Amino acid sequence: MANRLRDFKNAFERRVYLENKVKIHLDKISNFSFPEEEVLGRNIENLIGATQIPLGIAGPILIKGKGEREKGKGYFIPLATTEGALVASVSRGCKAISESGGTFVEVENVGITRGPVFRTEGIEHSVKVKTWVDKNFLKITHVAKKTSSHLKLKKLGTRFAGRNLFIRFYFNTQDAMGMNMATIATEAATKLIEKETGAECISVAGNFDIDKKPAWLNFISGRGKRVWAEVTLKKALVKEVLKTTPEKIADLVYRKCLVGSIMSGSLGFNAHFANIIAALFIATGQDPAHIAEGSLGITTAEVLDDGSLHFSIYLPSLIVGIIGGGTTLPTQKEALNITGANSVLEFAEVIAGAVLAGELSLLASQAEGTLASSHIKLGRKGKK
Amino acid sequence: MANRLRDFKNAFERRVYLENKVKIHLDKISNFSFPEEEVLGRNIENLIGATQIPLGIAGPILIKGKGEREKGKGYFIPLATTEGALVASVSRGCKAISESGGTFVEVENVGITRGPVFRTEGIEHSVKVKTWVDKNFLKITHVAKKTSSHLKLKKLGTRFAGRNLFIRFYFNTQDAMGMNMATIATEAATKLIEKETGAECISVAGNFDIDKKPAWLNFISGRGKRVWAEVTLKKALVKEVLKTTPEKIADLVYRKCLVGSIMSGSLGFNAHFANIIAALFIATGQDPAHIAEGSLGITTAEVLDDGSLHFSIYLPSLIVGIIGGGTTLPTQKEALNITGANSVLEFAEVIAGAVLAGELSLLASQAEGTLASSHIKLGRKGKK
Amino acid sequence: MANRLRDFKNAFERRVYLENKVKIHLDKISNFSFPEEEVLGRNIENLIGATQIPLGIAGPILIKGKGEREKGKGYFIPLATTEGALVASVSRGCKAISESGGTFVEVENVGITRGPVFRTEGIEHSVKVKTWVDKNFLKITHVAKKTSSHLKLKKLGTRFAGRNLFIRFYFNTQDAMGMNMATIATEAATKLIEKETGAECISVAGNFDIDKKPAWLNFISGRGKRVWAEVTLKKALVKEVLKTTPEKIADLVYRKCLVGSIMSGSLGFNAHFANIIAALFIATGQDPAHIAEGSLGITTAEVLDDGSLHFSIYLPSLIVGIIGGGTTLPTQKEALNITGANSVLEFAEVIAGAVLAGELSLLASQAEGTLASSHIKLGRKGKK
Amino acid sequence: MANRLRDFKNAFERRVYLENKVKIHLDKISNFSFPEEEVLGRNIENLIGATQIPLGIAGPILIKGKGEREKGKGYFIPLATTEGALVASVSRGCKAISESGGTFVEVENVGITRGPVFRTEGIEHSVKVKTWVDKNFLKITHVAKKTSSHLKLKKLGTRFAGRNLFIRFYFNTQDAMGMNMATIATEAATKLIEKETGAECISVAGNFDIDKKPAWLNFISGRGKRVWAEVTLKKALVKEVLKTTPEKIADLVYRKCLVGSIMSGSLGFNAHFANIIAALFIATGQDPAHIAEGSLGITTAEVLDDGSLHFSIYLPSLIVGIIGGGTTLPTQKEALNITGANSVLEFAEVIAGAVLAGELSLLASQAEGTLASSHIKLGRKGKK
Repeated sequence: MANRLRDFKNAFERRVYLENKVKIHLDKISNFSFPEEEVLGRNIENLIGATQIPLGIAGPILIKGKGEREKGKGYFIPLATTEGALVASVSRGCKAISESGGTFVEVENVGITRGPVFRTEGIEHSVKVKTWVDKNFLKITHVAKKTSSHLKLKKLGTRFAGRNLFIRFYFNTQDAMGMNMATIATEAATKLIEKETGAECISVAGNFDIDKKPAWLNFISGRGKRVWAEVTLKKALVKEVLKTTPEKIADLVYRKCLVGSIMSGSLGFNAHFANIIAALFIATGQDPAHIAEGSLGITTAEVLDDGSLHFSIYLPSLIVGIIGGGTTLPTQKEALNITGANSVLEFAEVIAGAVLAGELSLLASQAEGTLASSHIKLGRKGKK
Repeated sequence: MANRLRDFKNAFERRVYLENKVKIHLDKISNFSFPEEEVLGRNIENLIGATQIPLGIAGPILIKGKGEREKGKGYFIPLATTEGALVASVSRGCKAISESGGTFVEVENVGITRGPVFRTEGIEHSVKVKTWVDKNFLKITHVAKKTSSHLKLKKLGTRFAGRNLFIRFYFNTQDAMGMNMATIATEAATKLIEKETGAECISVAGNFDIDKKPAWLNFISGRGKRVWAEVTLKKALVKEVLKTTPEKIADLVYRKCLVGSIMSGSLGFNAHFANIIAALFIATGQDPAHIAEGSLGITTAEVLDDGSLHFSIYLPSLIVGIIGGGTTLPTQKEALNITGANSVLEFAEVIAGAVLAGELSLLASQAEGTLASSHIKLGRKGKK
Repeated sequence: MANRLRDFKNAFERRVYLENKVKIHLDKISNFSFPEEEVLGRNIENLIGATQIPLGIAGPILIKGKGEREKGKGYFIPLATTEGALVASVSRGCKAISESGGTFVEVENVGITRGPVFRTEGIEHSVKVKTWVDKNFLKITHVAKKTSSHLKLKKLGTRFAGRNLFIRFYFNTQDAMGMNMATIATEAATKLIEKETGAECISVAGNFDIDKKPAWLNFISGRGKRVWAEVTLKKALVKEVLKTTPEKIADLVYRKCLVGSIMSGSLGFNAHFANIIAALFIATGQDPAHIAEGSLGITTAEVLDDGSLHFSIYLPSLIVGIIGGGTTLPTQKEALNITGANSVLEFAEVIAGAVLAGELSLLASQAEGTLASSHIKLGRKGKK
Repeated sequence: MANRLRDFKNAFERRVYLENKVKIHLDKISNFSFPEEEVLGRNIENLIGATQIPLGIAGPILIKGKGEREKGKGYFIPLATTEGALVASVSRGCKAISESGGTFVEVENVGITRGPVFRTEGIEHSVKVKTWVDKNFLKITHVAKKTSSHLKLKKLGTRFAGRNLFIRFYFNTQDAMGMNMATIATEAATKLIEKETGAECISVAGNFDIDKKPAWLNFISGRGKRVWAEVTLKKALVKEVLKTTPEKIADLVYRKCLVGSIMSGSLGFNAHFANIIAALFIATGQDPAHIAEGSLGITTAEVLDDGSLHFSIYLPSLIVGIIGGGTTLPTQKEALNITGANSVLEFAEVIAGAVLAGELSLLASQAEGTLASSHIKLGRKGKK
């Protein structure tokens, strides 16, 4: 039966089948503007149509990063969301940041990782395998390189326990997120390692990557891009634009993002990284499963001697690309163009700025105790 | 400037402004089928159009849960994704599961949580506050109840450290995900607690919920729904449908999902929960930021004495609803109808089944070492 | 050969054998004051003598807890350690605390836990087992009670995944740490559960206790005793006794104990709980393996509006007793008497006070940057 | 008053004071064989006597590590404990291991770490500081070297968030545990870094070490020594010596040490590392607060094709030394001599072997369900 879905000629026939089978109408889903033959196989199977998510715009936000080409360039932020208040909140944050001269952003390209697991005969064998791997980095690099001219092996990290050995491959994949090419390159490398060491590769993806799951390894060693953003806001501006004080924001961040997350055993010491990451990822065709990594990180706030607020965010594991995957789809491509980012590093800067803006604005609302009241307003609307 | 975006009359004017400002075309984004006035304010601000995500269908999958109305009812699974192979993979899993008689699914309604943080005078004061809260549960329940007839306070959990006190509110919110009504009810309760105890509520959301961040509190105490799914597959069927053996799958799950995730310090002991959760959440209008919680959990595999495979998944923190939020949007509503779920519990069962299918199929591929090769195929397409 | 060690008549003969075998002298070890026949089998096997650890005294410290019998009673703290500066540091902390009117201490008796693991047929079976356990709490309590009049079953917590089911038993064991009686009672209960449900107990200790390992379950749900201690110190006193300022201590605690521990993925948000716990545990005959749990917890510091320092500690999992185990040994018994604690709860209060003192003094030293210099002094001595 | 304790001339006078003050007798504590003047200041302050802990011997155990000087050399293991059954259990494990030809042990010298925290002006400043540190490793090494000829700086790891910057210093400290000399060297380095970068060192110990607390950083990056030990036992030997089967042990390790610890959110995936580490640390004068790190790690068990059992342990963070600190005390020195270890690496091998033996024996008992029964026996004794 599962076969039958695949056997239909096109989305139209599949919809008709489903409408009769489940006794429903699928009118809205049928409305989409990407070429059916383009997405089939590459992006999806058993296509029946498209999900439409409202797309809003926040910004512009002034970013002082390496992407800063023209002085004072502002970036617009496309956000695909169904959660009221998010776009408005990020916009308010952008306003406060831009009027403070913009945000300084730093991006470190850790690289996408793949972490195969090997079965060895045990510790003694694993020690030999690790020794071989350490000694033959260049040989492994060469094999990986042959699978694609777009990727470069940066480094390896080997760990073992019992009869399990893990190797973490770090790749530079230029402007692509690169998970697929990294997988292909890693598999080629594992074949060599198997041949030379006798270790048996159980899976090219052994959860030492670690992909699409929250993990301290990604927090501590980083994955994809590591990004930081900061801004210093004058006391008066905090009052005028954010309707609160630096003291209240700093006190809230300490009690909520630090102590609160500690009491919860969390890896996310922030207010809502995931909201901004999700809206940006969906809008621009990133892999939404990587929201798991995007929710990791720290928000900090300190009152400086002159009474102004130093506010910052740190994301240790941001997985993004501007070519390949979902970025090739029409609406996603247009959303990427809205940011005007010409490289994945510049795009990572825009994300960092957007997250900073979203954190600043929501925490300001909470510091003022206006969170629920805004929800009441939305809640009512939601009930009409 | 951020204001200006808000001041435009409609999405059309905003697009025109952006097209001129950033020098781009936004033709595809302009194509959407939801009523602009319906989503404004409720789901989004600064609307410019819609993001379209390919929607595919997996299944049907046979589920033996409490939602089982007709014997042998099969459920179709709508998946919005841009990642090739996902829908096909979940479909293959559904086939193997259905041909094995279906999956037994269990859902526990833990309840949505809100966790405000209070500032107290210290430990001595916090002890008094906790005592008052424990003694006045009914009074707090009453206040919460008054904010909405759709929610019920289930229980409270209080913790404190230093001058910080946290109370975790657990709510039954019926078929709604319920975060907003939980926030409103919690804020009403905090006002009472402030009045009676002198503790000052710093934020209604104190990261003791803990919302949209991975955390051990959600893993251990649960949040939203706790769901389990299991299936037992005959050795022959594993061979025929999944092209591998029970032994290989069990060995892989042990080395990758258990040892691999342990070596990474992860809270996700699975292969790719996040992929299925993300595709289902986006298709049906769930909050995609909750993928952070959805990535938590365990996949297990054991070879039974008769050589068959016992395979299961456990998600301790699944945050879903079938009314309100993004579920009211046209394409999302149609996708929900495809599942045929008549309650949030039945919908949670479908998700559990889908995650089981996705895990089973991907792990079978990895056990056979066909992961990268399939990626190569897709990779090529990706490069054309 | 291992047998032979057991076959020797006494410690003397074993020493003689070892001295000849390894060519060493064991004069100092031979000097001990506990009766050989008393400890054999109960506390140790293959006895050859005793390890001697220098015992020092810190305090007195003024404690305002429920153990407070006479107004202003001071407690002396026995510390067995080989680490110079520890006793002096705790003493300085006691002085600052006592001169500030003493510390308020709170103790919650969570209870010692045992967490057996059962193998079930899978999820469907596990649900039935959990249901039976929830319904038959009284029956289980009765069976547990029969094993000892000294313990009481407080509650149960059941979790399951795949074919594994875990039940966390919480016991009140009065003044004993109680691990052994809890194990015996739990095993009796597991026999009943096996008989009634068909689940097979794989081990009475299934790491869901979780015993002698750091774990979020113990941090979040507590184990043994949960203890808090706090003190408020005037700015002048901080300056005079601790040679620093409230601001410096608060700033250090924020950057080191919160942010530093977060960056390390730690469960210990403190300076050196483990040092004080280890010295007190060894001195009083507690199980030193429980230092793993004792290192968990949070130290907080805040500057109040009047410029004074609020300082506190929180240990979520303190495992202690004043009867049984190592507390019956002569020197350990004498050390317990030094504290004057008449109940395990009062003893837990003394520990909480000691930890508070140790944290306060060390953090003050670090805030002043005198840590290494004091180590230099000791370092020199260490080299002579 | 705290002063007074310090002012007494010696331990005798302090005891007399305490005996009168608290109305107790301190006869046993007064009996010790180390020279009072030797320990004062270096190991302890306010000395009143000594704690005596029963010392037993386990072994010998055959170890196939780099320390293996004579073929088939057996090591005796000194264990200071008050917990009955521990020495006997480790001995049984040693017997099973030695009769299987001994254990292969691997030790990696990661190095002791110190992790100061600096306050910077923010991200932009932190980036500059990190760049300077990366560029000036040799200069920093030189400054560190000048503080002691016994230590060598191996590498540095820098992380930052907000206005906090952390640098993890890794030192080779030869046969010493080296925490003190590492602290002194790190402080010298921080002075240089402060001078050159303008970052202000808030504490030389910023919990990025991370010392005496359980943390994923130590698990993932290692600290002190990383050690592994493994053994393969024939099915018949498991039956004869351990009274169980390879299948039962492997099943138990999977359900308890892996799934059980996962369900508890633990960093310890083992049975009782902490018991053996504690007994060995106390016997040989190691710092018992490092039991927090010693409890981290993994025990694995697999049944091989020929039916034999592969059993192993992995400790990622073992903090030990054979000179300095508590190792200089008479009884501790004698215990170290019993092991016959001539270097810290050989000593680490002995510890790894002892932990392997302790894990193997206890897990075998639990697999046979004889844990509680042995406790019943001891329990009775405990009550007489």
